[in-house]
Amino acid sequence: MFRRVYLDNSATTPIDPDVVKEMLPYLTEKFGNPSSIHFFGQEARGAVDKARHRVADLINAKPNQIIFTSGGTESNNLAIRGLCEMNEKYGKHIITSRIEHPAVINVCEKLEEMGFEVTYLPVYGDGIVRVEDVSAAIREDTVLISLMMANNEIGTIQPVRKVGEIVKDCRKNGNKIWFHTDAVQAAGKIPIDVGEIGCDLLSLSAHKIYAPKGTGALYSGRGVRLKPQNLGGHQEREKRGGTENVPSIVALGKACELAREGLKTSFDRLRDLRETFEDGVKERIPGVIFNGKPDTRLPNISNVTFNHLEGEGILINLDMQGIAVSTGSACSSGSLEPSPIILALGQAEDLARGAVRFSFGKENTLEDVEYVLEVLPKAVENLRKLSPGYQSAPAV
Amino acid sequence: MFRRVYLDNSATTPIDPDVVKEMLPYLTEKFGNPSSIHFFGQEARGAVDKARHRVADLINAKPNQIIFTSGGTESNNLAIRGLCEMNEKYGKHIITSRIEHPAVINVCEKLEEMGFEVTYLPVYGDGIVRVEDVSAAIREDTVLISLMMANNEIGTIQPVRKVGEIVKDCRKNGNKIWFHTDAVQAAGKIPIDVGEIGCDLLSLSAHKIYAPKGTGALYSGRGVRLKPQNLGGHQEREKRGGTENVPSIVALGKACELAREGLKTSFDRLRDLRETFEDGVKERIPGVIFNGKPDTRLPNISNVTFNHLEGEGILINLDMQGIAVSTGSACSSGSLEPSPIILALGQAEDLARGAVRFSFGKENTLEDVEYVLEVLPKAVENLRKLSPGYQSAPAV
Repeated sequence: MFRRVYLDNSATTPIDPDVVKEMLPYLTEKFGNPSSIHFFGQEARGAVDKARHRVADLINAKPNQIIFTSGGTESNNLAIRGLCEMNEKYGKHIITSRIEHPAVINVCEKLEEMGFEVTYLPVYGDGIVRVEDVSAAIREDTVLISLMMANNEIGTIQPVRKVGEIVKDCRKNGNKIWFHTDAVQAAGKIPIDVGEIGCDLLSLSAHKIYAPKGTGALYSGRGVRLKPQNLGGHQEREKRGGTENVPSIVALGKACELAREGLKTSFDRLRDLRETFEDGVKERIPGVIFNGKPDTRLPNISNVTFNHLEGEGILINLDMQGIAVSTGSACSSGSLEPSPIILALGQAEDLARGAVRFSFGKENTLEDVEYVLEVLPKAVENLRKLSPGYQSAPAV
Repeated sequence: MFRRVYLDNSATTPIDPDVVKEMLPYLTEKFGNPSSIHFFGQEARGAVDKARHRVADLINAKPNQIIFTSGGTESNNLAIRGLCEMNEKYGKHIITSRIEHPAVINVCEKLEEMGFEVTYLPVYGDGIVRVEDVSAAIREDTVLISLMMANNEIGTIQPVRKVGEIVKDCRKNGNKIWFHTDAVQAAGKIPIDVGEIGCDLLSLSAHKIYAPKGTGALYSGRGVRLKPQNLGGHQEREKRGGTENVPSIVALGKACELAREGLKTSFDRLRDLRETFEDGVKERIPGVIFNGKPDTRLPNISNVTFNHLEGEGILINLDMQGIAVSTGSACSSGSLEPSPIILALGQAEDLARGAVRFSFGKENTLEDVEYVLEVLPKAVENLRKLSPGYQSAPAV
């Protein structure tokens, strides 16, 4: 049988069979609308409440601080636009970074059209935002800092706790300023405690943690007021209209429970797989760069630039041999530009085009890594033979 | 065994077992992100494309005119706000009706905050908007008419084809004006042909047509430009960011196919059930009003005002006997006000509080109706004995 190895878990994950099992009754006999007062409605309402507790537990929040959304993208939209529209009287300046997900960057750009000013902080060669840069960027009229917890392409973990402290200090001085973090990639990979981070808003997505696409959550802490963006019924304490996606919310709840219980084991296992992979690549393939600070990354992402190659060529070659990887994020695919994240690291355009993301998940095994280490070096070698740049370059 | 009869199909429907079957592979082995270039991604992309064809076929549209959303509420938000934000240079006046769903009314109110003017057209005792009122409301600066295809509480079918003709005439005169219709309740109940209606935008929801909650679609026809509301990746031709909800989109596609194939049979069956129900009520319960024009209603909704009673009392009494019905829409529940739809018919507040919606679905049988006709008269009689208004009223 043709072997398939899925190494694109940062784009989306398979759903955990226990998660499917938990949601199935809500796709069949337990189909009520949680807003209905009768038995069917209350049954659904109870399930949504239970899921809310489970999601809250993953990040050490309270259940009534969780707003269910249609996904990480909507969570980011609601957090950033919702907060800024509600609080523009306090100022119209936002601080974010150059390596945020399009769902953050594009909302910031929208707010620029609406009269806000946005500071996009740089990262350096290591793919990490500097706390000093955050401090220096804060102004009297800054209302929001949005900094992701971990990057989706290179996995670098950002100094969110220190930013949380800075925000607290600003508040002590009477500033009206809030802190949002996009934790879509970090969730289930590293511990998240909203109290320790000191964030006011935190975005989660179900389909990155072994639950279905089409659901997410936004943590919204004390003293945070948001303008709802999806207007309709009274759902989610008037913060998000639309009938709740009960089966997928149940699934997200279960996935959060599994993520919390398995965090330590899963971290070690993923990091071991990735280290085996990276050691193998270093050993077998010359002319590669591992992107992002090595010891400050999510355990499951390896982003590798292959000199003189286009990432897309490698992707297609590996795909033909059953291995699924990505260049850039899935949400940016379709664009022919090199990844803005890799460019932000300071890599030249032609080098940046050679970046490939390998992202591991809980279904991956050591055999999967061995298979990739068998296939990848040959693929790179063959493609380089066809690359004019490589032929004319001095031997590496 | 305790008998349960679900008569709240306008709030949400059970998922058709064939729909569950169709979506299941996308909750298990076929889990790719449609934006991914590799095999897993393309497999998911193919499924989304197939669903897009099926949704388009239900309403006689082209597949590339279908935008998948997180539900009917988001479809209405994107249609109305998206169109108005994009076209405000042509005018800032909107025409809608007083009996629209909160997802339309609340977006219109938001646009009023943003400087738009909105005309809310009345309905009369029959629950139907007058075409003459639409014509009379149109101004030079009208950019959008949003009129639902059928009402969610009383089922009355609105004169959308005639409104479509009016809009076409306005365009011939050079007016920049567009027409949106919320077809969430109409879909699967009566035929929908976007060409015949002459609408530019049409909202659909999956969970009202035997598919899961958390997915919907917006038809967006030729010459319609929308500002996206959920900003992120390039999904849905840049109209709606966020990873596609593949399993539920697949489900919606299947549900649309089933709806299209079963439309005629389903219409006759539902209408027969409802007529049996209404005949029985007329025969057995004095002091009732059937709301909405009798011959211009969806086949599955019966909205009944019980004099001297509160709808909520009936709801709770029936619920204890296993029968699920509703007062107002599920999206308005939690509010203690009488239904604005029933008030719009001209019923006095205390009368309007006595309205109950019975909405039939394809799982209902004649035995269900017989059971309700057995339980309901006694429930009404018992509750009326407790009602001070009833005791002091002259005999009906």
